[in-house]
Order: sequence, then structure tokens, then C-alpha cells
Amino acid sequence: MKLQLDCLPCFLRQVLEASRMVTKKTEIQEKIIEEAIKILRDFKNYRTPPELAREIHGLVKIYTRDPDPYKEIKKQSIEIAKKFYKPLKEFLNQQGDKLYWGLKIAAIGNVLDYGVYSKINLEKNLEKELKKEFALCDLENFKEKLKNAKIILILGDNAGETVFDKILIEEFKKYKIFYAVRGIPIINDATLEEAYESGLHECAEIISTGCTLPGIDFKECSKEFSEIFNQADIIISKGQGNYESLSDIKKDNLFFLLKVKCPVIASHIGIDVNNYVFKKQNIT
Amino acid sequence: MKLQLDCLPCFLRQVLEASRMVTKKTEIQEKIIEEAIKILRDFKNYRTPPELAREIHGLVKIYTRDPDPYKEIKKQSIEIAKKFYKPLKEFLNQQGDKLYWGLKIAAIGNVLDYGVYSKINLEKNLEKELKKEFALCDLENFKEKLKNAKIILILGDNAGETVFDKILIEEFKKYKIFYAVRGIPIINDATLEEAYESGLHECAEIISTGCTLPGIDFKECSKEFSEIFNQADIIISKGQGNYESLSDIKKDNLFFLLKVKCPVIASHIGIDVNNYVFKKQNIT
Repeated sequence: MKLQLDCLPCFLRQVLEASRMVTKKTEIQEKIIEEAIKILRDFKNYRTPPELAREIHGLVKIYTRDPDPYKEIKKQSIEIAKKFYKPLKEFLNQQGDKLYWGLKIAAIGNVLDYGVYSKINLEKNLEKELKKEFALCDLENFKEKLKNAKIILILGDNAGETVFDKILIEEFKKYKIFYAVRGIPIINDATLEEAYESGLHECAEIISTGCTLPGIDFKECSKEFSEIFNQADIIISKGQGNYESLSDIKKDNLFFLLKVKCPVIASHIGIDVNNYVFKKQNIT
Repeated sequence: MKLQLDCLPCFLRQVLEASRMVTKKTEIQEKIIEEAIKILRDFKNYRTPPELAREIHGLVKIYTRDPDPYKEIKKQSIEIAKKFYKPLKEFLNQQGDKLYWGLKIAAIGNVLDYGVYSKINLEKNLEKELKKEFALCDLENFKEKLKNAKIILILGDNAGETVFDKILIEEFKKYKIFYAVRGIPIINDATLEEAYESGLHECAEIISTGCTLPGIDFKECSKEFSEIFNQADIIISKGQGNYESLSDIKKDNLFFLLKVKCPVIASHIGIDVNNYVFKKQNIT
């Protein structure tokens, strides 16, 4: 998905929120905003939103002199998510179509963005979010693909969400599962560390995409990731950043699983904001 | 009120929306955003949000080559508002405290921002908005001031809102009323033209502030306006732009009447967004 003009004010707002989340020093917050505006001036040099996100959110690392400013927030998100693991497993075991509900739980995990959801918030909203149907759900198509599948690749997104993804993956007992995470810390996205902290190694082989942006950049991907990306029978891409990176790729075995939080993506998919989507990539 | 870092992404979003509202040409929208980012780089040169708003929204005039790009939107807002004039008058006449409800109606008019409220929207929400109490209401203080008042100055805000203000002004029969509007077209704010179109000359003397920004800048004000500002026994300042300009001025006869639409102003006043406020200026 191409970078849109709407992304520019949104990134500026995001990086302000981000800088406030990781430092109390207003002079650093101000410096980050100043530098972000300089980057925005060259917005035409960036192809997709994650490419610009890498630069803009990279400022937070530079000016806080911390290569992983969200470390604590990611840790908290995982801790919060883990408290929901058992009740969600129990809920899932009571359902008829466990695959549908596994996907739904993994999609709800996508709400755990930016560490903005406290345990209390999540508790209050979980039931409501569970009840919300997918606005788009290519489940039958997915089930059809599963019949002949051996290898499933999941492209992870946020830390915390990883725990919800584990619940989905545990339903894929018959398959070889790869779970791919960012190559370096970027925003609150999961890296190898958070994937292990979430226990994903118990049900999947954790790999790094090799990418430094909150999405996929094929120029950056490791050889290992590229091979698995090409060999996988099914790819499940989680969240908005991965969607923005892959939405133009013609791949018949690619499924997007996300909560749509931004109007640009909503309009690109053709649904309203705040909806859940499990969408097979359109290759026509 | 000082310009805050939060204002920067907000202005960028505003000017994108504004440019889309007044031109379908994406190359003009893009040019406006590019130039807005250049202005944002120098944000430290601007003292208050309206000062930056003048520059940012001025771009829409420059690049659409239209000194009044909101002319049609302002006209529509006034037409929509006029349809509510009669029912609101009837409503007001049934109320006990007509002053309270006159103020409330004028505050609701402040919703008519950006022409985003269609007649249908307004119809749907009017009853709900009428029921919503002021989160802050210095009515007793205002009534006290009224006892010895002769001259009331109202600082207008948006076109359309002007019609609602007329309903309030018609309750001030015993006083000499001045209604001040922007010196030139800026966003959808009322100028002399829209004040007359709204019929305000029937109940008030319409004057121009002389200002070119969506607020008050005392360096720009006409001599006439400055004199009335100093001589008025009561000043009612409508909307956020005027609040942002005047919130630091120590004036005992200054009342702010607005719907709070932005988190920065909400936090400055100490209430939540979307609340109605009728607030006497704090001079301590």
C-alpha cells in the first residue's frame, strides 16, 4: 500500500505519543518532533507507510539514546496478555469451530498495540471484542488451503499480541509453523526476545525477518526468511504494518489477519475502521 | 494559550481535510501539505495556535487561488442553521431560565464547525446536545455582571454558529450589542458578509476585529474594535480560536462560551473533550 497524505499527520501524532511514552523530558520530545517534521518534508522518498515509520520512530531511539525504548512496555504487554491465556484457551475449547475462534482471538491480540491497553481495559473489552464478527472472513478458502498444507508462516506484529497468536498456533498441530518477527526493535513490535518471552518457541519455530521496519521490506529480508516466505504453503500476515507492506503482492496463499485501526487501510480494504478482517489476498 | 506540540499533527490533518474540502485536485492537496510541513518546521516562531492556523490555512487560499475557499461551505452552514432558528426560538420560549438556554443554544452553534454538520446530522444530534449540561457554567457571575452592564461585545467564530448566536443576542434586549467577526476570510469563520447573511445586523452592530487569523491578535486589531473591546462591560468570546487567543488575558468581564473539541484546550480548562463550557476568565 502506497504512503498516503493522511499518513503524514498520523505519523507526527504517533511519534509525539511515542516520545511521551518513553521519556518525560519535554526537550527530547520537542527535538523528536522537530526532526520528524524534517523527515516528513521528504515524504515522497518513502514508498509505503512502514518505510516512513522506520525513520520517524527511529528518532525515538536516537534521541532517547535507547535502542529499544519500548522494552518495558513490550514486557508489560506480554505479562498482561499472559493473564488472558488460560481463560481464552478455556473459551476456545468450548467453541464448535475452533479454527474460526482461534483466528478471532489472534485478531483481538492485534488490539494490544502500543501498550495502551491495560489489563483492566482488556478485561472490560475482551467480551465485546470477542462478540464482534469479522467484517471480512475468508475462512472457507483458508480451510481449503489447509487441506494440502504442510508449512504455515505467521508474520508477527506487536508484543503481547504474540501470546494471543500462540493460542491460534496451538490449533495448528499438524503443521510445521514458522513465526517471523522484526529483525531489530521497532516501536512495540515483537522481536526474537518477545517471541520467546511469549512462549512461541513451544509451538513454532521463531525466525527473524531481518527487517528493520515495522513491516516487511524484501530488500532487507534474511535469506532464511525469504526462503520460508517462498516455501510456505500458507502465510498469515498479522496487523497493519505487514498489510501495508504486502497488500500489493500477488500471492495466492497469503491471508491478512488484523483489526483495522486506520481510515486509510479501512478504505483500501473497503470496510469501516475498528472492524476485524481475515482476508485472502486478491490476486486478480 | 501557548502553541503545544499536539497542535502540529492536528494542523497538518486539518489542512489536509481543508484542502480536500475545497479542491478535488490531488496535486494541489499535495502541494498544500508540502508547504504546511515547511511552515511546521518553524513552529517555535508561533506563539498561539491561531497564529500558526493563519499560516497553515492560508496555504489553502494561496494554492487554490481563492481568497475565500470556504465561501460555499459557509453559505451552506448558514442555510442549515437558519432552518433551526424557528424551532430553537420556540424551544427557548418554553424555558424558565431563558438566559441559560440562550447561552446553551449559542454554545451548540459552535458545533457547526467546518461545515461538517449536515442538516440531518444536526437534527439527529440537536436534542442530545441540548440535553447535555454545561460542564462549567459561570451563569450566576454573568447575571451579576449583567445588572450594571450597558455594552456587550460578542466575539464570533464560525459561519452558521452566527445564526445560533442571534438567538442568544435577541435575549439581550436591554443592551447595546456589538458582534465582532474576522477581518478577512479564514477557514469557515464568519466575516462581515456571513454576519449580515445570518441577520445579525437586526439585533447587533456588526464590526470587524481587523484580524487575519482565526482568533484575536491585538497587534492587528482595528482601532474601532480595540476601543469597543476596552469599553464593553461584558465580552463573550465564542469558540476555541478566540479562547486560544485570549485565555492568558487578565480581564474580569471576559466569558468564554464554547464546545471543547480538542484535548489541549480540554486539559487547559480542566474538563473532558466534547463538553460545553461557559466560563468566566480567571484573573487570579
